[in-house]
Amino acid sequence: MVSPIDPTATAFLLAENRSMPMHVGGLQLFEKPEGAGRNYGREMYESMRDVEEIAPLFLKRPHRSLSTAGQLVWVEDEQFDVDHHIRHSALPQPGRIRELLDLSSRLHSTRLAWERPLWEAHIIEGLRDGRVALYTKVHHALVDGISAMRLVQSTLSPDSDQREMPPPWDARTRRDRAPRPTSDETSLAEIPTQVMRSALGIATEAAGLPGALVKTITKGVKNETSSISLYAPRTIFNQKITGSRRFAAQDWEIERLQRIGKATGTTINDVVLAMCGGALRRYLLELDALPEAPLVAMVPIGLKAKESHLPSTEGGNAIGAVMCRLGTDLHDPADRLSAVHASMADGKEALSGMTPTQIMAMSALGQAPAIIAPMLRMSGIVRPPYNTIISNVPGPRTTQYWNGAKLVGHYPLSIPINGMALNITCISYDGRLGFGVIGCRRTVPRLQRLLTHLDDEVAALEKASGA
Amino acid sequence: MVSPIDPTATAFLLAENRSMPMHVGGLQLFEKPEGAGRNYGREMYESMRDVEEIAPLFLKRPHRSLSTAGQLVWVEDEQFDVDHHIRHSALPQPGRIRELLDLSSRLHSTRLAWERPLWEAHIIEGLRDGRVALYTKVHHALVDGISAMRLVQSTLSPDSDQREMPPPWDARTRRDRAPRPTSDETSLAEIPTQVMRSALGIATEAAGLPGALVKTITKGVKNETSSISLYAPRTIFNQKITGSRRFAAQDWEIERLQRIGKATGTTINDVVLAMCGGALRRYLLELDALPEAPLVAMVPIGLKAKESHLPSTEGGNAIGAVMCRLGTDLHDPADRLSAVHASMADGKEALSGMTPTQIMAMSALGQAPAIIAPMLRMSGIVRPPYNTIISNVPGPRTTQYWNGAKLVGHYPLSIPINGMALNITCISYDGRLGFGVIGCRRTVPRLQRLLTHLDDEVAALEKASGA
Repeated sequence: MVSPIDPTATAFLLAENRSMPMHVGGLQLFEKPEGAGRNYGREMYESMRDVEEIAPLFLKRPHRSLSTAGQLVWVEDEQFDVDHHIRHSALPQPGRIRELLDLSSRLHSTRLAWERPLWEAHIIEGLRDGRVALYTKVHHALVDGISAMRLVQSTLSPDSDQREMPPPWDARTRRDRAPRPTSDETSLAEIPTQVMRSALGIATEAAGLPGALVKTITKGVKNETSSISLYAPRTIFNQKITGSRRFAAQDWEIERLQRIGKATGTTINDVVLAMCGGALRRYLLELDALPEAPLVAMVPIGLKAKESHLPSTEGGNAIGAVMCRLGTDLHDPADRLSAVHASMADGKEALSGMTPTQIMAMSALGQAPAIIAPMLRMSGIVRPPYNTIISNVPGPRTTQYWNGAKLVGHYPLSIPINGMALNITCISYDGRLGFGVIGCRRTVPRLQRLLTHLDDEVAALEKASGA
Repeated sequence: MVSPIDPTATAFLLAENRSMPMHVGGLQLFEKPEGAGRNYGREMYESMRDVEEIAPLFLKRPHRSLSTAGQLVWVEDEQFDVDHHIRHSALPQPGRIRELLDLSSRLHSTRLAWERPLWEAHIIEGLRDGRVALYTKVHHALVDGISAMRLVQSTLSPDSDQREMPPPWDARTRRDRAPRPTSDETSLAEIPTQVMRSALGIATEAAGLPGALVKTITKGVKNETSSISLYAPRTIFNQKITGSRRFAAQDWEIERLQRIGKATGTTINDVVLAMCGGALRRYLLELDALPEAPLVAMVPIGLKAKESHLPSTEGGNAIGAVMCRLGTDLHDPADRLSAVHASMADGKEALSGMTPTQIMAMSALGQAPAIIAPMLRMSGIVRPPYNTIISNVPGPRTTQYWNGAKLVGHYPLSIPINGMALNITCISYDGRLGFGVIGCRRTVPRLQRLLTHLDDEVAALEKASGA
């Protein structure tokens, strides 16, 4: 039952250490189905735990021994202990979202043990409004963040009457049932996992950093292409981190952001980035830590096959990364939105002029900073190429259910790494955009204030744009 | 604010790894004071959190840097974040002791981060009978298990009306207020921490294993003294462990054990060891893993200064360790109790004939197996010198309160290490003896069954002795 671990997964396993656990998380909020009693949390837990057959992905664990010549391989966990992986938890009084975020922060801080398959799921009861939460955690060596979200979404249904629905780790779960959101632009969620993984594979080949990435980055240093700006200022986010996490989450109506976009001729993604830029400005000002130069965010974007000049693979799409200046140096919210819009347009333009290999190198930079960053240092590039990562991933557009329980919120928990202590990831769902803000608890103090600042920014952008 | 770390504490820090966290824990159960409302859990949490000044022990963290020439030192945590250390948790429905033990197991499995002071306290609500639990966790580099218990006990009072009582980490807590249990024999709890620490210090001096320990052990191998038996059989407990823990706890009336002792002419400690021997026999038989030779437990005991031939230090006492054969090869419970009694008498006799240095070496073996075990291997001693550790520590004899909340149970969580996957520690309190059984979740499967077996053994011993 030994199977090889691909180079990218190996790299994620080896990059991991106490202060940098390499798992992605998801927090989902469910409303109980009609007629459910006060034991619904336990019932949900038991139906998620008592599956007949666990899918192979959730049974394998990394293993290294003399018999594998010191190589990391996947082996099946022959003592699989479902109680270790699926847990029933509860919130203390008064059971607010605050207590839920506290518990999620804590759960996200602990590292997955290699002796066992690299995942956990926690069914959490005790919210005062009776909702039930599900926190899931999967090692990046198994799935990347987007695939993890898609995996969870693939078990949902728009039909509130559907029952006998398996959880994500059930062998019955069919991966192809994933809801594919339709969108005008090619979206990140549509990129097949394999494309991302192979893009990463290239960047992490045994020999180390491929020439393409170094060349691309070097070009960025010379500012020949604005899609890579290595002129990111130093900030408190770009330091060594500890293993402790703080997670904050909230959602906003997509319609509000759309109105701002329409009034200003910008995209929703531009509005999201401007919200983040404004919130980061307010946050850093409070700490008296705002640099003069604008912060730069790495923004992963989906590319159509044609734009990417890539030979058509599955679905013919690829991922690129744009370095976006967030306008944190500008006082006026409208100015910030314009700056973000210009920076994104500029970046996409530059991407379209890049060679396929350069794009792949950019993908690697976007998807695997934990692996790439040390390589950059080896190549003598020492300044942070960007200050934070902001991703925006489309999710299902309609209301979804799991065995009659209505999904009412979905928030991602990403991976802070050394030199990149703060991550913002958004998922759209059912007319709302859920923000998941994750950071090192020590390096990013009072991170939860970013939620207030984001909220203030929406209002400020509405006012400025007359939306 | 840099202070040196003594060699023993350093050794505990360096011995630690992912599968062997080096912290001791305690689980205490409290009944709410009369008139307390449903928010009592939160009130208790807030009063434990909101202290004016944290005691220095709880503010220091280990640090190693170029400026300390790579040496580990204590530094004060200048960003001390009380919310990281004191947590409010809750149990899911139905809030039985089982859910509490599950949560405690999980909390005890995660390692303390070196970036912060090495302790945590969790106030746990949600027990269906309304009781509130307190789980505390302190690194062995700060205090040993017995001192940790004593520290917690030192904040309690026999007066149910007393209020304004500080928690253990409050700078106002006076260490000398610890209740000193009186006992006919010198008890472990009476040995000053410093004596234990210096005994350990000797064993872990920079040069490595001192000759005394090797000589003592070698003598044991030759069976010249029965207080060290290196003829412990191999068992499932004596393997490499993982980082995941299972904790089980229960208490029994001391009077029942006393009656058995009186009827058979044995001590309570003998009865406890016979209970453990019988329970381990039942447990291993179920797994078809009982070795032919009897299991050997390392049993720490207190020695009077005179017996120990030691120059009188603080209180004039010392710790020794007796290797006790648990009679797991014997079918009859009465035979097991006799075998245990004989083995203990034999071991104490042997201890009294040892030189002070040999006794100190034994103390080290008893108190710091994680540090000593690798040294033994270096000296070519490869078989486990014993199979498990069983400690019995006297606690307060009368009912104790913390700000009016009645302490109704107190259970210790010890440290499993590689080669020693199971630990049993008992504390007496208010007429009952609380057993804390801790093991590696993977190496010691279905550990909680030991509770049932312990209970069956009490009944079997009662029947056999006519008590």
